[in-house]
Amino acid sequence: MNRFLFQEEGKSAIRLWSQTARSCDPYVPGEQPRAKNIIKLNTNENPYPPSPRVLKALAAAVNGDLRLYPSPQAEELRIAIAEFYGMKPDQVFVGNGSDELLAFSFLAFFNPGETVLFPDITYSFYPVYAKLFHIDYEEVPLFDDFSMPVEKFFGAEGGVIFPNPNAPTGVYTPLEDVERILRNNPDKPVIIDEAYIDFGGETAAKLIDRYDQLLVIQTFSKSRSIAGLRVGFALGNERLIEGLNRIKNSFNSYTVDRLALIGAKAAIEDVDYFTSTCRKIIRTRERVAAELKAIGFQVTDSKANFLFVKHPRIPGRKLYEHLKERSIYVRHFDRPRIKDYIRVTIGTDEDMDAFLNGVSPPLLS
Amino acid sequence: MNRFLFQEEGKSAIRLWSQTARSCDPYVPGEQPRAKNIIKLNTNENPYPPSPRVLKALAAAVNGDLRLYPSPQAEELRIAIAEFYGMKPDQVFVGNGSDELLAFSFLAFFNPGETVLFPDITYSFYPVYAKLFHIDYEEVPLFDDFSMPVEKFFGAEGGVIFPNPNAPTGVYTPLEDVERILRNNPDKPVIIDEAYIDFGGETAAKLIDRYDQLLVIQTFSKSRSIAGLRVGFALGNERLIEGLNRIKNSFNSYTVDRLALIGAKAAIEDVDYFTSTCRKIIRTRERVAAELKAIGFQVTDSKANFLFVKHPRIPGRKLYEHLKERSIYVRHFDRPRIKDYIRVTIGTDEDMDAFLNGVSPPLLS
Repeated sequence: MNRFLFQEEGKSAIRLWSQTARSCDPYVPGEQPRAKNIIKLNTNENPYPPSPRVLKALAAAVNGDLRLYPSPQAEELRIAIAEFYGMKPDQVFVGNGSDELLAFSFLAFFNPGETVLFPDITYSFYPVYAKLFHIDYEEVPLFDDFSMPVEKFFGAEGGVIFPNPNAPTGVYTPLEDVERILRNNPDKPVIIDEAYIDFGGETAAKLIDRYDQLLVIQTFSKSRSIAGLRVGFALGNERLIEGLNRIKNSFNSYTVDRLALIGAKAAIEDVDYFTSTCRKIIRTRERVAAELKAIGFQVTDSKANFLFVKHPRIPGRKLYEHLKERSIYVRHFDRPRIKDYIRVTIGTDEDMDAFLNGVSPPLLS
Repeated sequence: MNRFLFQEEGKSAIRLWSQTARSCDPYVPGEQPRAKNIIKLNTNENPYPPSPRVLKALAAAVNGDLRLYPSPQAEELRIAIAEFYGMKPDQVFVGNGSDELLAFSFLAFFNPGETVLFPDITYSFYPVYAKLFHIDYEEVPLFDDFSMPVEKFFGAEGGVIFPNPNAPTGVYTPLEDVERILRNNPDKPVIIDEAYIDFGGETAAKLIDRYDQLLVIQTFSKSRSIAGLRVGFALGNERLIEGLNRIKNSFNSYTVDRLALIGAKAAIEDVDYFTSTCRKIIRTRERVAAELKAIGFQVTDSKANFLFVKHPRIPGRKLYEHLKERSIYVRHFDRPRIKDYIRVTIGTDEDMDAFLNGVSPPLLS
């Protein structure tokens, strides 16, 4: 953290910060610019609106009942999610976005002093949680093509967590490899963060009956178009879910509000809308990937709703700035191994044409 | 926790729980019964619906923009709250209900090994947070009339936290006494949990400019009728707020959703509605308190939206059950010093007449 802050500490309220407030290393979310006429491809939101059934259910729920607390157990939503996955409601946990679920999971399943493994290139919130809760971790280097060195995750001391598909690379780890990691960590928590699974991957949820150490975390923010409502969920053995509930009920009894519960339920019930928007995004992704390759970009094989791309001559920072000047926001991570890349959310076909124009010759030459 | 659970641990996924998941002691929120024809006086919700301006603003916000993340800094809501209190937006923090703010505050300002002081009879979530984050605490015994032994909170090793008015007693600590606690803890965090302040107390917010160690926590769930939307806020010195932001951004970047932000903004802007519903509740409270005393109940001098009452002969548990049989839900705490009491939320005059009927002779004799 900023050295200046500590220098003035004596006379400022910084003296009142806990050791944890000092030592933590907060996450920086992607920009949320207020301007209306920008093309926003930087936080992996869905370019399509929520299902009409979601909006209808929400409109009906805007009434005097908002004076009452939401259901602390979120029963109805858990039942709807369980039905979608063919599981039991007690195998489902609902929270305020997958970020909250990840935070709860670090507290519920990882111990200080027992090293947790995750990839060196991954969701940059993992080390943030680890620092907040004083969990030791080791960043396992991915192969050069960003695929997972599966064996390196065997026999973890404290547990394993990784996104599948991975972020920000989009690279997908086949379910056989996920299962090998599970087989080789029989008594340690293995958390699969499936925020992007609906864009071409296969969920590990079907492995839950065979591996009670598996926790699958998903979100309504990407494939179900309600990032604005903050709903995520976890699937796992009943006892794992109970562990999560113990933490949640030690933290905040009601983290998902009445409208979010209702909107999410309508979202998971509208299977047709979900399927068709995911298909559209996948189709756009494949088209844009092909066009980018045609003009010389390197493009990872993404199974997510974004592309992770690099130009042979133009640094990532420069691409990012060049696009921003044109009101196109993408994400650039100034970190080792990936600073030459940009991460580009898949928008509508129109959004992506604007993006392609922005990075095409002669503009880029 | 349940001994049975630990016995079967070897063969169940409980073996995967962290030490924290085992040692924590989750809070049990008041019942949220699903039945429609009950009188719900058990979780201190407001009996009046949100302001019409809140419902109008929410209805307008149910649209395709819900696909986008909310503002992580909640600027517009923070500006509206700052205006209401005559403060700066940087002195305001917004979170998912005051429970989340309390959890963040325990992490941001209290350290393991430094004993924090709070009353022995108080919001029963405080020891839950303390156990979750391994914070040592001492429960300072209130006087027999449940007033605060102010001097006992001087020179706290780790800091001070208490609700004002207190819960579940409703007893209010005058601002002069709050200030004495601040003067005698110049370099330790002093957190005043003002969930019920708008029902007759005076907020400590005006002391913030003089005491940079003061954090005031409030909620939209009680006086502003939107418990269902989950919004709370904290007021304090800019550097204290920054400490809270460091924790929040290490936990979940967006904990308040788009609709909650919009609803809360409309709620704080509608000052007339707020004032008139608070007045109605205070008037009802004073009437019911007088009627209860007339039939022999002991009633604390509550400045909250609930009454804390005891019958000279009938135990609290029995009162609770007797009322529940009549579909009237109140709260009973099976804890030392207060197990003879019930806590009764102030509902509409009609609700309270039903409650008074339920506890009046000859029914109770």
